[in-house]
Amino acid sequence: MKMKTCLSVLCLSLALTPAAQADEGQWQPHQLLELKSELKRIGIQIPAEKLADLTKAPMNAIVSLGGCSASFVSPKGLIVTNHHCAYGAIQRNSTAEKNYIADGFVAKTMADELPAGPNQRVYVTDQVTDVTAEVLKGIDATLRGKARHDQIERNIKALIAQCESSPDYRCAVPSFHRGLEFYLIRQLMLRDIRLVYAPSEAIGAYGGDIDNFEFPRHTGDFAFYRAYIGKDGKPADPSPDNVPYASKDYLTVSAEGLKAGDPILLAGYPGRTSRYKLPEEIRFARDTDYPMRVTDYQRDLQAIADASTDNSEWSVRYAATVKSINNRMKKLQGLLDGFGRKDVVAIKQRQHQEFLDWIDKQGDAERYRAMLSQLDELVAKDQTLTQQEFVLSLATSSDMLSAASTAYRLAKEKEKPDAERDSGYQQRDIPFIKARLQRMEQSLVPEVDRRRWQSALNRYQQLNPQQQLMAVNKIMLLPRKDLNKWLTELYQHTQVQDTTFRLSLLEEPAAAFTASNDHLVRLAVMLYDIQDTLREQREHLDGDFDYLIPQYMQAVIAWKKSQGKPVYPDANSTLRVTYGTVAPYSPADGLTKGPFTTVEGIAEKHTGKGPFDAPDAQLRAIAAKQFGVYRDPILKTVPVNFLSSADTTGGNSGSAVINKRGELIGLNFDSTYESITKDWYFDPEITRAIHVDIRYMLWVMQELDGAEHLIKEMTVKYPKK
Amino acid sequence: MKMKTCLSVLCLSLALTPAAQADEGQWQPHQLLELKSELKRIGIQIPAEKLADLTKAPMNAIVSLGGCSASFVSPKGLIVTNHHCAYGAIQRNSTAEKNYIADGFVAKTMADELPAGPNQRVYVTDQVTDVTAEVLKGIDATLRGKARHDQIERNIKALIAQCESSPDYRCAVPSFHRGLEFYLIRQLMLRDIRLVYAPSEAIGAYGGDIDNFEFPRHTGDFAFYRAYIGKDGKPADPSPDNVPYASKDYLTVSAEGLKAGDPILLAGYPGRTSRYKLPEEIRFARDTDYPMRVTDYQRDLQAIADASTDNSEWSVRYAATVKSINNRMKKLQGLLDGFGRKDVVAIKQRQHQEFLDWIDKQGDAERYRAMLSQLDELVAKDQTLTQQEFVLSLATSSDMLSAASTAYRLAKEKEKPDAERDSGYQQRDIPFIKARLQRMEQSLVPEVDRRRWQSALNRYQQLNPQQQLMAVNKIMLLPRKDLNKWLTELYQHTQVQDTTFRLSLLEEPAAAFTASNDHLVRLAVMLYDIQDTLREQREHLDGDFDYLIPQYMQAVIAWKKSQGKPVYPDANSTLRVTYGTVAPYSPADGLTKGPFTTVEGIAEKHTGKGPFDAPDAQLRAIAAKQFGVYRDPILKTVPVNFLSSADTTGGNSGSAVINKRGELIGLNFDSTYESITKDWYFDPEITRAIHVDIRYMLWVMQELDGAEHLIKEMTVKYPKK
Repeated sequence: MKMKTCLSVLCLSLALTPAAQADEGQWQPHQLLELKSELKRIGIQIPAEKLADLTKAPMNAIVSLGGCSASFVSPKGLIVTNHHCAYGAIQRNSTAEKNYIADGFVAKTMADELPAGPNQRVYVTDQVTDVTAEVLKGIDATLRGKARHDQIERNIKALIAQCESSPDYRCAVPSFHRGLEFYLIRQLMLRDIRLVYAPSEAIGAYGGDIDNFEFPRHTGDFAFYRAYIGKDGKPADPSPDNVPYASKDYLTVSAEGLKAGDPILLAGYPGRTSRYKLPEEIRFARDTDYPMRVTDYQRDLQAIADASTDNSEWSVRYAATVKSINNRMKKLQGLLDGFGRKDVVAIKQRQHQEFLDWIDKQGDAERYRAMLSQLDELVAKDQTLTQQEFVLSLATSSDMLSAASTAYRLAKEKEKPDAERDSGYQQRDIPFIKARLQRMEQSLVPEVDRRRWQSALNRYQQLNPQQQLMAVNKIMLLPRKDLNKWLTELYQHTQVQDTTFRLSLLEEPAAAFTASNDHLVRLAVMLYDIQDTLREQREHLDGDFDYLIPQYMQAVIAWKKSQGKPVYPDANSTLRVTYGTVAPYSPADGLTKGPFTTVEGIAEKHTGKGPFDAPDAQLRAIAAKQFGVYRDPILKTVPVNFLSSADTTGGNSGSAVINKRGELIGLNFDSTYESITKDWYFDPEITRAIHVDIRYMLWVMQELDGAEHLIKEMTVKYPKK
Repeated sequence: MKMKTCLSVLCLSLALTPAAQADEGQWQPHQLLELKSELKRIGIQIPAEKLADLTKAPMNAIVSLGGCSASFVSPKGLIVTNHHCAYGAIQRNSTAEKNYIADGFVAKTMADELPAGPNQRVYVTDQVTDVTAEVLKGIDATLRGKARHDQIERNIKALIAQCESSPDYRCAVPSFHRGLEFYLIRQLMLRDIRLVYAPSEAIGAYGGDIDNFEFPRHTGDFAFYRAYIGKDGKPADPSPDNVPYASKDYLTVSAEGLKAGDPILLAGYPGRTSRYKLPEEIRFARDTDYPMRVTDYQRDLQAIADASTDNSEWSVRYAATVKSINNRMKKLQGLLDGFGRKDVVAIKQRQHQEFLDWIDKQGDAERYRAMLSQLDELVAKDQTLTQQEFVLSLATSSDMLSAASTAYRLAKEKEKPDAERDSGYQQRDIPFIKARLQRMEQSLVPEVDRRRWQSALNRYQQLNPQQQLMAVNKIMLLPRKDLNKWLTELYQHTQVQDTTFRLSLLEEPAAAFTASNDHLVRLAVMLYDIQDTLREQREHLDGDFDYLIPQYMQAVIAWKKSQGKPVYPDANSTLRVTYGTVAPYSPADGLTKGPFTTVEGIAEKHTGKGPFDAPDAQLRAIAAKQFGVYRDPILKTVPVNFLSSADTTGGNSGSAVINKRGELIGLNFDSTYESITKDWYFDPEITRAIHVDIRYMLWVMQELDGAEHLIKEMTVKYPKK
C-alpha cells in the first residue's frame, strides 16, 4: 500500500525547524539600534537603522486603527488589517439583502468602496519625542499623591493641546516604564476610511469563537480598507470629493513563502502588558482579582442569557456584548490556567529576589530598600481600592446608568476651563463620547439592561456587609427586599434608552441633571460623589505611584543593564516592533502544534454549520488542488495560518508580519491559549502568536473572491519558478 | 532570556523522523520468508529465517496468556506482559491490608511470588501444522449448510482430540483466510503461573480509562509473571514443589534506546480483524450494527448506574463490567468516528470494484460472478440473523439467566458422546465453564442484574413488533404491563445467585432442570429451543459461508498476488509478526502527536487524584532528573511511551516490541483512537500502536520499585558510554 505524502511532509516541515528563537520584547523602534546583534542572530537583513526610522518604510507604513494595527500596501492608500478589525465597518454596511458579513464584499472600483463609518480613523505615527522633562516640569520629590498626579496630567494636557494645534493630528503622551519616561506621540489622523474588500465570514472568521485563542487555526482573518484625504492633501471628513491618500511608503508583499525556522519581524500597536509588576501584584491578580472577575463574567453572561433567551432580536442585540465578555473571560481563564500550569508568581518572586540581592550590593541599597517598602504599602492600598472599584461597578452595572453618569460627569467637567478638565472629558474627547452614546442604540434593550443590573445587585447584596459600600447602600436603599419592583419602577421613569434624549444630556448643564424628573438621571447625580471619591483616591494613589514606581523601574533597568540586557517598556498602544521565528510549540508532552496549517485543514474542520461552514467554491478548489503559485514547496499545498515566537498582545491584531527583507508575509491576528499569560510573563517555550499567511490571502483573493485587481494594485513578489 | 532546551529537543527528535514506513500486515511467522525485501527496506537485521522458526528465539519466547501476549525474558521462566493483563492476578492477591493494586508488588525472592490464579495459563506455541486437507476431508462441493458446518467441526474436533492426547498441550484449529486454510496450533500449556512484580496502579495504569485509546500517553503498563513446572519437567498444577520453567530461549533486553524512524518488529497473538470483509458487510456495521450496539451499551451503563448509584459496594462489584462496556463502546464509537472521518465503505467499494474488474478478465469470470452473487445473498441473510441474535440477547440479558442457560446447555450436550458435543461444551471445556460460573460471585448483585435485565426488556418492548421474537414473547408473556413485578417475583424464586447452587447445576442431568422449582432455571429451559434454533440457523449459514468464502478469498489472494502483494490472513488469536517504524502522526491539520512521551509529561498530567496521581518518589526523581543510564540522548530525559506504525489489534496487549536485532525494546499495550478503524481498514497515515519503552520500565524498576534483582536476572544491553 502506497503511503500518502502527508506524513512525510509533516516530518520534512518539522525537520527543517531549528530551535525556535523566541525572543521577548515589544521594542520601541529606536531601541532596535541596541539589538543589532540579536536581529543578525535570527537572520534579519533589513538594517536596524531603517527599522528605527519612522519616516521611511517599513515603519511609516505601519498604522493604527485605534485598537487594531494595520499597514499601507499600495501607493494609493490601500490598507490591510484583520477581518475582525474591519468587522464593524462590514456590519454597518450590511443589510438583509446585501449581507456582506455572510457573503463578503469586494469593491470592483474605487467608486464602489463603502464608508467604514464616522468613527473609523487611521492613525499614522509621524513623530515620537521624548518629553519626560516637560511632563515632570515643576514636580519635585516632595510632591505626592493627587497633587503630583494633577501636575503631571496638567503638563501632559498642555503638551497635547500644543501638539493638536493642527486638527490633522491626534497626540498623546503615554508613560513608558511605568512613568519613568514620557513620549509625545504625534499621529496624522485620517478620517475618511472606506471598506475595500472583506472575504465572507466563512473565511474571515472561520472557526469563530470556538477557535478563538486556539490552534490549529484556519482563519482568513484579513480585510482591506482605503484611506482618503481632501484634495488639498490634508485629512478631511468623509466626502465624495476626497482622493485616495498617497501613502509616502507602503509594504511590498512577498508570496515567496516562508518555512519553519525563518526569522520574522512584527510591527504594530500592542495595547497593554504588565511585565514589570511586582510579585505581589501578580499574586493578587491570580488569587483574588481574576477569579472574582471570571465569576462575575459568568454571572453576567447568565443574566443576559436568562433575559434574552426567548427573544431572538434581543439575543442579536447582545451578541457583540456576549462575544466580548466571552473573549475577556477566556483571556482571564487562560491566565488562571497558565498560572496553574506554571507558577509565574514563584518565578517572579525568584527574579525579584535576585533583584533584591543585586540592590543590596549597590551603594544606595538603604534608599532602595526604603523605597521598596513604601511601594509594598502602596500595592496593598491599590488592592483595597481595586476591590472597592469593582464593588462599585457591580452596584452600578447598567449601561443606561453609565450613560447618564457619563453625561453628568461631562456636565460637571464642562464647568471648568477646558485645560483643567479631567482627561477624557475635554473638548477633544466629546466627539468620542457622543459616538459611544449614539452606538448604544445598536446594542441596548432596557429590559435586558435592567435584568443584568438586578443580577449584579443580587450579587452585590450577597457580599459581606464590610465589602459593600455604605454610601451606595444609603442612596439605593440597599439591601432592598424587592429589587425587581424597585428597578421596574426606575425603568418606567427614565428616557435614557431613547437616543435623542440620551444625546441631549450631553448638552445640558449640571443643574439640569439635578432638576431632572428622570429617575435614572437623578440616581446618576446621587451616585456622582461616591464615584468621584473613588476617582480621587485613585488619582491620589496614582500620584504616589508616579513618585515611587519610576525609581523602582530605574533600579530594575540598571539591574538588567548590569546583565547586558536592554529593557523594553510595557506595551502602551504605541508603535512597537517584535521579532521571532516561525516555530511550532509543544502544549503538552508528546504533542506538537504547528507551525503551519493548510487549506486541507479547512476541509477537515468543515461541518457545513457555522463557524465551520467553508464555502463550496473553496472546498472544490481544495479538492481539486487548485493552488497556483501559492502552493508551498514543502507542504505541497496552500498554508493558511502559522505560528511565530513573536511577542504580541491585544492591539497587535492586524499587525504586519514581515520577512528578513521587510516584506509583508502575513498578518498577526491571535495568540494561542497557552500564550495568554505572556501579558504578565513571557515564556519562550510556549508563547506563540498566530498569523494568517499572505499566500492564503492572495489565494482567496484570486481563486475565490475575484479580487485580482487589488493584487495588481499591490507590489507582490512571486517565487521564482 | 535563555531558552529552555525542550523546544530544540522537540525539533531535533522530529528532525530525525523520516517518512513513516507504516506497513499493513499481521503475518504468520512463516510468511516472513516472502517479505525479506520489506524487512530489509525498513532496516531489520535479524534474518527472516530466524523469525520464521518457532523453535528458536525470538519466536519461541513469544507466548500467549489467553487474550494477552507476553514473552520470556530470562532462562528461569520470567515473563513480561502488560499491567492490565496481570490485573486480575494483582487484584486477587490484594486485600485491604495488602493492596497491591494501589501499592504495587515486588517479590524479593522466588518464595515471595504469588499465585496468579487457578485460571491463569501461559501458552507456548510449539507446532503450527497446515491441516487444511484434514479439515476438509470428506467434504465435497455439494455439501452445504449445517451438514458442511458439522463435518468441518467434526474433523476439527478429531484433530484437536488427537493433538491433546497429552494433557500438557492445548490445541486449536483456527481457520485462516476465512476458511481457506486451517492450521493445527499446538501450545504447551503452563498451569502454575505466579505474580513476580507489578508497579503500583499509579504507574501501571497511569491515566486510567481517561487515557484509554489516547495519546500522548504516560502509562507504565507492564508487569512480570513467572511460569513454573513440575520437577519432572512437565506442566503441572500449582504446587510449592514446582520449579521455574527453564524456557529454552528468551528475549535479550536492549536499553540502548531507539529514536523516531527506527524499525521495529512486534510479535504476539492478535485477536480478530475484519480486513477482508465485503463492502456491504462494512456498510451494515457502520449504518446498523454498531450504532445499535453503541446505543445499547449506553442504555446498559445507565441501568447499572441507576441500580448501583446509592450503593458503593455494588458500584465496586460492577466496576470491571462498566470498564469493559466502556472500552467496547469507545472502540465502536472510535470505529464510527473513523468511518465518519474517512469513507472506508467507499474505499472498500472502490477496491472491490478493482477486484471485480480483474475478475472479469479471468478465464472463469462467470463462475466467480455467480459465486459473488450467492455471497451477496448470504451476507443479507447474515444481517437478518445478526439482528435476531441481538434481539434475543436483549430479551435474555441477565448474567444469572445466562448462567442457568449455560448449565442447561451443558446438561443437554452431555447427553451426547464427547466427540459429538458442540465445541465449547466438551469435557476439555468444563473447567473453563466452571471457572466462569465461579468468578460470577465477584461481580454479581442480583438486584443490579434484575434492573439491567428490566432495562433491556423495556428496550426490547419498544422494538417494532416485527423485530421482536414471537416465541420469546409467548414464553415471557411479553409485552407485560408490570415488568418490575414479574422480575421481582422471578428473582424471589431463584437461587442462581448462590455460587454453590450455580456450580451444582453443572453436575445435573437435563431432566433435573425441567423438574426444577427454580423459576430462573425453568425459564432457561423454556428459552433453550429458541436459542438452539438461532444457533442452528447460524451453523447453517456458517456452512454456506464455509463453502463460498474460501472461493472468494482464493480469488482475492490471486488478485493480490497478481499485483505482487503477499496476503496475510485476518488475525485469529494465533502467533503473528508485524513490522513498522517509530513514527509520529498527525490526527488533524497543524497537530502532531508523538512519537515519544517523557517522564516530564507524567508530572505535567499529575493532579494528585486518580488516574493522574503519580507517586511522590517518582515526581521527586523526575524533578531531580535522576535518570541514570535510561536518559535518552536526544530527548535528554526518560521516554515513557512511544508510537509505531505496526499493525496491531486486541490480543496484542503485552506483545514484545523488538528492535532490528531482535532485542526487546518495549511492550505494546494500546493504539490511538484514530487507529481503531484498522480492524476493518488499515490507514497507514493515522494508524499507530502505543508502546511502553523498556527504558521507562527499567527506570521504574531501578529507581522506584527496588526490582534490580529482576533487571539482573534478565540480559540487558546498556548504551555504550
